Amino acid sequence: MKKWQHNSLLGLEYLPAEDIKQILDLAKSFKEGDADLLPTDSLLRGKRVINLFMEPSTRTRIAFEIATKSLGADVISIMGEASSLTKGETLHDTAMNVQALGAHGIILRHSSPGSPLLLSEMVQVPIINAGDGSHEHPSQALLDIFTLREKLGSIEGKKITILGDILFSRVARSNLWGLMKLGAKVTLAGPSTLLPDEVASLGVKVSHNLHNAIESADAIMLLRIQHERQQASHFPSLSEYSKMFGLNKPLDKLLKREAIILHPGPINRGVEIDSELADSSKSVILQQVRNGIFVRMAILYLLIGRKP
Amino acid sequence: MKKWQHNSLLGLEYLPAEDIKQILDLAKSFKEGDADLLPTDSLLRGKRVINLFMEPSTRTRIAFEIATKSLGADVISIMGEASSLTKGETLHDTAMNVQALGAHGIILRHSSPGSPLLLSEMVQVPIINAGDGSHEHPSQALLDIFTLREKLGSIEGKKITILGDILFSRVARSNLWGLMKLGAKVTLAGPSTLLPDEVASLGVKVSHNLHNAIESADAIMLLRIQHERQQASHFPSLSEYSKMFGLNKPLDKLLKREAIILHPGPINRGVEIDSELADSSKSVILQQVRNGIFVRMAILYLLIGRKP
Amino acid sequence: MKKWQHNSLLGLEYLPAEDIKQILDLAKSFKEGDADLLPTDSLLRGKRVINLFMEPSTRTRIAFEIATKSLGADVISIMGEASSLTKGETLHDTAMNVQALGAHGIILRHSSPGSPLLLSEMVQVPIINAGDGSHEHPSQALLDIFTLREKLGSIEGKKITILGDILFSRVARSNLWGLMKLGAKVTLAGPSTLLPDEVASLGVKVSHNLHNAIESADAIMLLRIQHERQQASHFPSLSEYSKMFGLNKPLDKLLKREAIILHPGPINRGVEIDSELADSSKSVILQQVRNGIFVRMAILYLLIGRKP
Repeated sequence: MKKWQHNSLLGLEYLPAEDIKQILDLAKSFKEGDADLLPTDSLLRGKRVINLFMEPSTRTRIAFEIATKSLGADVISIMGEASSLTKGETLHDTAMNVQALGAHGIILRHSSPGSPLLLSEMVQVPIINAGDGSHEHPSQALLDIFTLREKLGSIEGKKITILGDILFSRVARSNLWGLMKLGAKVTLAGPSTLLPDEVASLGVKVSHNLHNAIESADAIMLLRIQHERQQASHFPSLSEYSKMFGLNKPLDKLLKREAIILHPGPINRGVEIDSELADSSKSVILQQVRNGIFVRMAILYLLIGRKP
Repeated sequence: MKKWQHNSLLGLEYLPAEDIKQILDLAKSFKEGDADLLPTDSLLRGKRVINLFMEPSTRTRIAFEIATKSLGADVISIMGEASSLTKGETLHDTAMNVQALGAHGIILRHSSPGSPLLLSEMVQVPIINAGDGSHEHPSQALLDIFTLREKLGSIEGKKITILGDILFSRVARSNLWGLMKLGAKVTLAGPSTLLPDEVASLGVKVSHNLHNAIESADAIMLLRIQHERQQASHFPSLSEYSKMFGLNKPLDKLLKREAIILHPGPINRGVEIDSELADSSKSVILQQVRNGIFVRMAILYLLIGRKP
Repeated sequence: MKKWQHNSLLGLEYLPAEDIKQILDLAKSFKEGDADLLPTDSLLRGKRVINLFMEPSTRTRIAFEIATKSLGADVISIMGEASSLTKGETLHDTAMNVQALGAHGIILRHSSPGSPLLLSEMVQVPIINAGDGSHEHPSQALLDIFTLREKLGSIEGKKITILGDILFSRVARSNLWGLMKLGAKVTLAGPSTLLPDEVASLGVKVSHNLHNAIESADAIMLLRIQHERQQASHFPSLSEYSKMFGLNKPLDKLLKREAIILHPGPINRGVEIDSELADSSKSVILQQVRNGIFVRMAILYLLIGRKP
């Protein structure tokens, strides 16, 4: 296997396609129980990973905790917003302290876009971005792309529609970079108020018409309506959004028979997606959750373990 | 040993006496350090248990954590009420996600009676009820019964008085089922407002007179006054309750010399029980806490381990 | 090595100099990777340590967690103020319960001075004081003294100035006892309102003049301004304090070239210390954090492990 070059995982914008593929391939090896990686819980034995979550999160934190423990490393979770570690302390000082405590890796969630990059320039320890404001959320995009590749065979040339609150979504942003690098044909769809103008210049299709956006898609990636990240109201109401851009049972007939539906969770049943569709055979939402463990094991092993 | 038949532990109401005895016997083997079970921390190695606590709890959660770790399994605790895992998510979706994260068992505490049963019908993973509203709390009752059996020799024919807030107590309910199945003569005592009418039909004695209820008892099980589960005030005041139904020093003379006193904790000294009695040789409150580890190890091993 | 005599670590006031040195020497062995102590994660295998934090803390709790896990023991953290474990329960009952859960050691943080002593008289399990009100914080002082010894060669005869909010500081109090026992010449400096009168009788120098206090010091130990422990305002404002007693760049010229600066963290940049000085080569603040792991490993091993 190619030697891994990067000290940190900050986002997919600057990660070359071949490095994205390396993570996906390693995650596949973990999922398949590749004998070269057994026993997996010896791979990071003696390492100590610190989850530094300055913004509340359970889902991502727990998936990283499970991935870390599965590799035999210790994990300590610090919930920053409520912690005395960070009492009147700069993020830099917090990180220097965490490094001094002997961390071999820091998984950072922070509300400020760019904070993982900033941190990676200040400490020697690898930084893994677990979501920075509305900027990037690379491990989520990697598990989405892993699931797409698993289900569709490859990404190259596939039509992927990302639907929803693009403007505020770090998940959308990371997926956009990753999918374009791997050659997907990406369409962004959603209310015009939630679709930033600059995206058109990136070479993606932008659609404000749900029917056009989904009828030829190989996969629909739904986003969660993020009330907490919206300063102002960008659409009249949830039921308005649901009526215009929610994926509901009648729309199912428009979809290709073999199209798949993704969602980063937690799903708002009846808002972005109807219950029936969320539970249908098209939905790969729970496979995404499971794949998230393997993708994060790959990320941790490449960044913290002996580089293969 | 008999093969274990149940996928989940939802309550004692539908658990046959022989299965209750199987848990108690296995817990005894753990307590005695039975050589067949050594080293205990290899018994569930590689398993992952998720504590899903949608209602606050420390005591039960920690006892389950210790039991899980003692068997060598990993444990992840999710405090639901404050977690983004459950943000706008149905309990079903949360459980499906937890299952997708690779859980081999889910320990659920929830304010809704019946939610563990509901969950067990939706996921394949074993569900252990760690308290569902005022319905059941089987692991607590099993540790109570374990302690009774240890101290009294057996349960058959023994006079057990459960005293206190029966109406709202899942502990009382689970003990009632368990004790009756094992042949105890159960008396329920407490203020009439806290004693549901239907219990009389179950074949237990109901008493509103404290003296009658305790004077011939082999064991008194006290309950904690649960302010948080009472919608309305069912007795005038704590000091009123204490005067009429609190176990105090003068009452000690009424008790049989070898009678024992149990309490699920945390105790309200001076309310349900006087300090002197709580610390007397009759009290087995701390033995209950200790036995709780072994009983929960038995539950986890039967449900999650290789069935013996 | 000398047999360790104490069941608990309550403070440095009553700990003889030779016992303080024994902890420091063992911490040094851990830091140097002494072969007799390898593999360190087998030293406390099978032991269970309970962090009982009745006052919020992240920094100290995490350092103890890492130290405990580094020795192979299990650690369970109970944040008391929010826990049902302590719901209407006396500290004594909580401790008896923690003991019944099979703890081999309890690390206690509590707002009441003397509560670790009280507890140690009630339970058999070793108690480690992780800070009791404004009384003592022995593990912090031991890591400070460890760092001083490492940097200055020895403590005997060295001039150490403790600067800041002496009145409310358990860190100052523990350091005072420890440093005097090891033969340091201690100066206490700070606003007169924050310097208790009784300290003069202890045989330390008291100074209200910053220049005099620091110009011949081998080490300056800064304290954090503890807003949360001050009932009344003892100085006009933070900027006032900073101007009169903050360690700033111009003062650097007064310091001996080889003087070192310590701070227990988290630092208030621009209040107790200027950013430039905090990041200068004189500062050993991050070494303190790192040494804190080894010192706590030594404490845990002496109290909980097989006594060497």
